[in-house]
Amino acid sequence: MTRFAFSIHATCGPARTGAIEMERGTIRTPAFMPVGTAGTVKALRPAEVAASGADIILGNTYHLMLRPGAERVARLGGLHAFMGWDRPILTDSGGYQVMSLSDLTKRSEEGVSFKSHLDGSRHLLSPERSIEIQRLLGSNIVMAFDELVPTTSTREVQAAAMERSMRWARRSRAAFEGGGAHAEHNAIFGIQQGALDESLRHASAGALIDIGFDGYAIGGLAVGEGQEAMFACLDYAPGQLPADRPRYLMGVGKPDDIVGAVERGVDMFDCVMPTRSGRTGQAFTREGPLNLRNARHAEDTGPLDPSCPCPVCAVAVAGGGSRAYLHHLVRSQEILGAMLMTQHNVWFYETLMADLRAAIVEGRLTVFANDFRARYTRPT
Amino acid sequence: MTRFAFSIHATCGPARTGAIEMERGTIRTPAFMPVGTAGTVKALRPAEVAASGADIILGNTYHLMLRPGAERVARLGGLHAFMGWDRPILTDSGGYQVMSLSDLTKRSEEGVSFKSHLDGSRHLLSPERSIEIQRLLGSNIVMAFDELVPTTSTREVQAAAMERSMRWARRSRAAFEGGGAHAEHNAIFGIQQGALDESLRHASAGALIDIGFDGYAIGGLAVGEGQEAMFACLDYAPGQLPADRPRYLMGVGKPDDIVGAVERGVDMFDCVMPTRSGRTGQAFTREGPLNLRNARHAEDTGPLDPSCPCPVCAVAVAGGGSRAYLHHLVRSQEILGAMLMTQHNVWFYETLMADLRAAIVEGRLTVFANDFRARYTRPT
Repeated sequence: MTRFAFSIHATCGPARTGAIEMERGTIRTPAFMPVGTAGTVKALRPAEVAASGADIILGNTYHLMLRPGAERVARLGGLHAFMGWDRPILTDSGGYQVMSLSDLTKRSEEGVSFKSHLDGSRHLLSPERSIEIQRLLGSNIVMAFDELVPTTSTREVQAAAMERSMRWARRSRAAFEGGGAHAEHNAIFGIQQGALDESLRHASAGALIDIGFDGYAIGGLAVGEGQEAMFACLDYAPGQLPADRPRYLMGVGKPDDIVGAVERGVDMFDCVMPTRSGRTGQAFTREGPLNLRNARHAEDTGPLDPSCPCPVCAVAVAGGGSRAYLHHLVRSQEILGAMLMTQHNVWFYETLMADLRAAIVEGRLTVFANDFRARYTRPT
Repeated sequence: MTRFAFSIHATCGPARTGAIEMERGTIRTPAFMPVGTAGTVKALRPAEVAASGADIILGNTYHLMLRPGAERVARLGGLHAFMGWDRPILTDSGGYQVMSLSDLTKRSEEGVSFKSHLDGSRHLLSPERSIEIQRLLGSNIVMAFDELVPTTSTREVQAAAMERSMRWARRSRAAFEGGGAHAEHNAIFGIQQGALDESLRHASAGALIDIGFDGYAIGGLAVGEGQEAMFACLDYAPGQLPADRPRYLMGVGKPDDIVGAVERGVDMFDCVMPTRSGRTGQAFTREGPLNLRNARHAEDTGPLDPSCPCPVCAVAVAGGGSRAYLHHLVRSQEILGAMLMTQHNVWFYETLMADLRAAIVEGRLTVFANDFRARYTRPT
């Protein structure tokens, strides 16, 4: 008995807000999913992730299959029990990481064989194995296994990769169906490919719709093409996908990327940016990112962002969360610095999503987005 | 207006339990102070430290004077506000660290000049400067500045260092008095030296009592002499110090060191062991330490210690705190591993102190200590 119901509560141009109802909880959309690569959203306890407003997190098939291993996670009761997170988990298919992180990959119609970046052991990822791993992990939203090629590839190469990805999407769907009943195994999303080519994107969307998925991801963006090119693609790509299904833009992105993508009809996001930045001394604020390593913060007793409701900014008034303290922790490479900066950043992202949802409900998304862009300064 | 009142509620042979009442809170003794070297108990938020049962933490003068700097901490409102810890703080004098961590030290009757291990800048620590720094930090219990020499030194060298430490103790006391009224500046402790020589320890105690301090530390132990030699010294050293003042054994120690020292009349302890071990994969349990890197934990869904009340062991039942998960986090060098292991270890130490206090109150310390030793297995 599985459940996956997407409802749209309000729209504002192409933008939508709503909810995905699942066994393990409701996902309010537009949603940002913190990335829990190796069974942990880095530097945060699960309760701290939940308190930020995150309804769902992402787990990485590639990392978890190599360590601790999908079969081991299954023996330990699945990823939710293993890491102590009881809300929904979406798992990627490993397709992206296997190309970007592993060595000596060999691709064929069957799948991708590769050497682990951890210990050099050889593994195979195919549509069937990827779905099997995601099922072993206990994923609630499973992603189809796809093939990625460099953005600099020719249209011919991009077309061939998209077409193979569509054949793999069909095999992924079949493996998902054939996997037997599994209560945790709620939904499967297909992934649209086709790089920056509208006709390839159209063909990909058609192939996915023909197979039929619970939701549809837009893949192959945010890989170096720049915001302008990405937005140009998002001007048409979401509209090629079914309006009554969630649309998930994979690996995106910077706060202003997300605002622009929501305006263009995207419902779900994931990105390592808030967590990774938290470990490198970068804090997000509504005025733009701050580098806490900078000496100008050394005696600043103010919070990272006076408008931020996160526990770090809230405590700054009473002490312990000031820019000066965070500057000291970051400079001293203290673990607490990574903890507090990550906590703030995840709250920043989740608060932004809550504000976007409210703006859509209240019919003022354009004003909100323009105000956001006017205040938010990207680092030059 | 300062306050420092030590009361003994019960004794059991030389062991005592009681409380130190201070402006910022009550310190239940025997007390363990987690070490907050650089303005943070590593990998724990202040609220997490407090929840473990810690009534007081230790801050390091040497580290804080170099980064962020004592004058800067003072400008930012003192160490309590800077780090967001509102209970008592004891600061060491920097005497130990300056000898163990810095380069090119030059000692004289005036003090110790040294090069920072961070940036090579030259600094001077003297009794007067150490007390000034501790006042700038807003320390509640200030330690006298002392001189340490290697344990392998001759008796003549040990005697000379002890005698200089006693002259420095008198200068520390005078600087403490001369520093002007400071609400945060509640108490000063002298430090007994004299290595493993009973007559030197006796002379040192006499000199300190002659000066007069709010509490008395036993210094120069736990520096490689071994538990047997340390306990032999603790068979007489606490008795040389005033019975109505707290006795603080600096830098100790392993759980069984603490149990034996409490039996011998020590009231306060500090050690990096629970926090440092938390970052290297070692967890303390009543059966002895566990190395979580060990493959035998890889599929163990049990908690670190079924008798432990800490949030990590409590959550293990529901998932997220199992040995298997901690093994995975430690192996993967995840920050969350350091966070959870440190949290457990600090709770272990504070729970042990609570159990020791209860055993003294109930007149069953010997039985408790013998039971503890029978169960607790030190790594071989």
